[in-house]
Formats: sequence, C-alpha cells, structure tokens
Amino acid sequence: MKALEERILSEGRILPGPVIKVSSFLNHQMDPDLIMEIGSEIGKRFADASVTKILTIESSGIAIALAVGASLHVPVVFAKKHRTSNVSGEVYQTIVHSYTHNVDYTVVVESEFINSNDNILLVDDFLANGKALEGLMELAHQAGAKVVGAGIAIEKGFQNGGSGLRERGLRIESMVIIDRMDENGIIFR
Amino acid sequence: MKALEERILSEGRILPGPVIKVSSFLNHQMDPDLIMEIGSEIGKRFADASVTKILTIESSGIAIALAVGASLHVPVVFAKKHRTSNVSGEVYQTIVHSYTHNVDYTVVVESEFINSNDNILLVDDFLANGKALEGLMELAHQAGAKVVGAGIAIEKGFQNGGSGLRERGLRIESMVIIDRMDENGIIFR
Repeated sequence: MKALEERILSEGRILPGPVIKVSSFLNHQMDPDLIMEIGSEIGKRFADASVTKILTIESSGIAIALAVGASLHVPVVFAKKHRTSNVSGEVYQTIVHSYTHNVDYTVVVESEFINSNDNILLVDDFLANGKALEGLMELAHQAGAKVVGAGIAIEKGFQNGGSGLRERGLRIESMVIIDRMDENGIIFR
Repeated sequence: MKALEERILSEGRILPGPVIKVSSFLNHQMDPDLIMEIGSEIGKRFADASVTKILTIESSGIAIALAVGASLHVPVVFAKKHRTSNVSGEVYQTIVHSYTHNVDYTVVVESEFINSNDNILLVDDFLANGKALEGLMELAHQAGAKVVGAGIAIEKGFQNGGSGLRERGLRIESMVIIDRMDENGIIFR
C-alpha cells in the first residue's frame, strides 16, 4: 500500500532490534485518514470471505480493526490483555508472550462475543514473530469459529511469524511487508 | 443521540454500582457503524472549535476517538496506561485512579505529540467521576496546550464528574446522559 510505505519512509524511525517506530501515525499518535484507508483496503481484500466478525487485541490493534469493521460493516471484538490469569466469568483465554516487553499476558475474550457460526478476520497493526496472531487463533479455536485470514498493517518479513503462519494455511494480507531495515534504509517486498 | 439511547436500552445491562455494561457494542465488542456515527456527531458539535488534536486514553477510548478524528481530519493521540511509574523518555505523565479496578495508573503521552499550539478535544467512552478527563487535562496542561472541550459517548449524570468539570468551565458534549438507572430501568436526561 503506497500511502503506508511513503509514511513509513518519511516518519518511521529504526531502533535497535530492529524495531520500526511508527508512533507518530499508527500506534500512539494516529492519522485517522490513513487508518481508515488501511481499513478499507483490508476490507476490500477480504470482501469475498464472508467475514462475520473482526478480532484484534488491545491496544494498538483497535483503531485498524475498527476501520476494517467500518468497511465490512461487521462487529469488532478486541481481546483484553491482563497481567494475571485471574479472569472470572465465561471467557476464552490464552497466554501470549510479548517479546517487546518480555512479559506473558493472559489474553481474554468474553465467550458471548465469538461462536461457532463466526467467520473471523484477525486484524493487527504489526506481524513479527506471530505470537499475537497465534493467540487470537487459539481464542477462535476455543469458540469453534473459523478464521478466514489476517489483515495486517505492517509485516516484518525478516521475522518468521508471517511465513510460518502462511505455511500452516493462514491467508495473510499485509499492507506493507518490510524485508530489510538497517542503517541503509528500508527495503519493502 | 437517539441511536445510542436505543442501543443502551436494548443491550445495556445494569450491574451493581450501578454500572452499565455496554460491552456488546461499545467497549469489548464494538459496532463500527454506531461508533462512526458517534464520532461524526461529536465532530459536528466541535466543528467550530478549531480542534488540532484529539486526546484519549487506552483502551476503550481509542475507537471513538479515531471516529472523531476521522470526522475532523485531525490526529488522534491515545495516552498509555502503565501500572508502574517507571516511564522513560520525554513524556508528560500523571496518575489516574480507576475506581472500577481500584488501582492507580500512570498515564503517559510522549511529549512530541502534544504542544502549546494545540487545541485539544478530549474524547472518552464514559464520563462518571471525571478522573480520566482530569488526567488528560493535566497532560494537556503540562504541554501548555489548550483544551477546547470533551466529547463523551455515555455520561453517568448521577455521578459528579460532569457537573464538577462543567463548573470549572469545561465544555462537555455527551451523546447520552443517564440520570438514573436501577431495577426500574434507565432514565435519560
């Protein structure tokens, strides 16, 4: 997606990791026009997938997921992150390890919001090692729902999350895939 | 706002507190069409306020804030919540007490994203005791920015946050104000 590539080139900052910091337009400060455009484009790519529900994870997935939901006119559910596993009520839950913060989160969705009739589209801002998507797939699995694919804003193609999940049969549409980034700049696929 | 009142009446559940649970359409599962409509309406009410930036707080404020930003075509910043006060870098920060979870959060915005030229519109899903809005006002104050008002989806008019902040001169536009709720139902202002 051209508009997103351009924005990454003009405002993204490469930090050790390597991490690409896009907090000026994607996940701390957000450009709503760009995010609505990303949502439309992901919606278009999955227009044929009979999506009944969008599933994302708080916090930085919420805005893009809402934009996809506004494009497809289907409900958006965001899984909640807890530091503890002390979650009460009727929920689906799993553990997701965050490499960024080096901590395990319990990720939870109330069970009334996904069910076995759902065709779920997963949405997130980033795809790197794939742990967040795997957690969301596990929640969908617990509900007996079908996962029709994943719509991602920025995929770090040099990490193995995307290729591993595609090998397992997941349809992934990433608006931008970064194949390399270092002091010489950013190479998109 | 009629559409929001109707949705609260049909799907809201009153729990002890009293708390109104609207997680089927506003803050766990979200109806994107309704949220975009709320965003448009808040945007319309502040169309004359020369808003340069929307400021909200993760997580449940993000979707509505994005919708307002899409209506006004201005950037949306969400303050991040941390359990610890160990925040590094150039940030504005303050403490907000959550009565719902009975815990203090450190609420943080990177300082590059708000500044003294900004006319800030605060946005949140709920206004009850006003502590979250006060925290956001404090962050704006630290940046030397002007707060032009607050756009709220649901105000609990029987708690004193809204009246106290209006007395201090804050312009608040709530899409729905609940004056009473109990076993007999919900009375809107």
